[in-house]
Amino acid sequence: MIRKGLVIGIKPEFIAEYKKTHSDVWPDILEKISESKIKNYSIFAQEDRLFAFFEYHGNDFEKDMTKMKNHPRFIEWEKFHENMFRPLEHQEKFEGWVELEEVFRKD
Amino acid sequence: MIRKGLVIGIKPEFIAEYKKTHSDVWPDILEKISESKIKNYSIFAQEDRLFAFFEYHGNDFEKDMTKMKNHPRFIEWEKFHENMFRPLEHQEKFEGWVELEEVFRKD
Repeated sequence: MIRKGLVIGIKPEFIAEYKKTHSDVWPDILEKISESKIKNYSIFAQEDRLFAFFEYHGNDFEKDMTKMKNHPRFIEWEKFHENMFRPLEHQEKFEGWVELEEVFRKD
Repeated sequence: MIRKGLVIGIKPEFIAEYKKTHSDVWPDILEKISESKIKNYSIFAQEDRLFAFFEYHGNDFEKDMTKMKNHPRFIEWEKFHENMFRPLEHQEKFEGWVELEEVFRKD
């Protein structure tokens, strides 16, 4: 099992809309998440950034993520949200979700 | 089961030391975490902040957290790290770990 912690910057004026779309995610997207063997997936808001945690329970993370990201409904979902995000402090341009280093772990 | 997402600011010059202490946490602290019914606990570093995710599998979160925080070894552990932290952008003074709002959830 692989665990991921990720962060993305969000424009403060879009937080309310992001929360709204994420309280009622398209069923197709939830299905794709399950098909991609992602479980225990939470996104938390911290001011003008979002922190995500999930577990990947499959055997080929890159393959499953690529398959999900290339699905037409997922592309549509991403397109719908892309204007809400912002680069992080150290980024020259927006780079999407950034993987974080896990510095402590207790099962 | 309760899930928590938390954030804390860290002074960049202390990140290396924080990672070092958290790669080899005192056994007493790990034991206290288990006794407090906390599981699946990860801390991730993002530049000058840390994000934590954990699950609480007990029946009285406040009671278990208070008990843990008042334990002499836990107080010692906190004392050892307190100088490493910084207030977050919107804080006038340092407030410790701040609980985040969960805006998306998929089991």
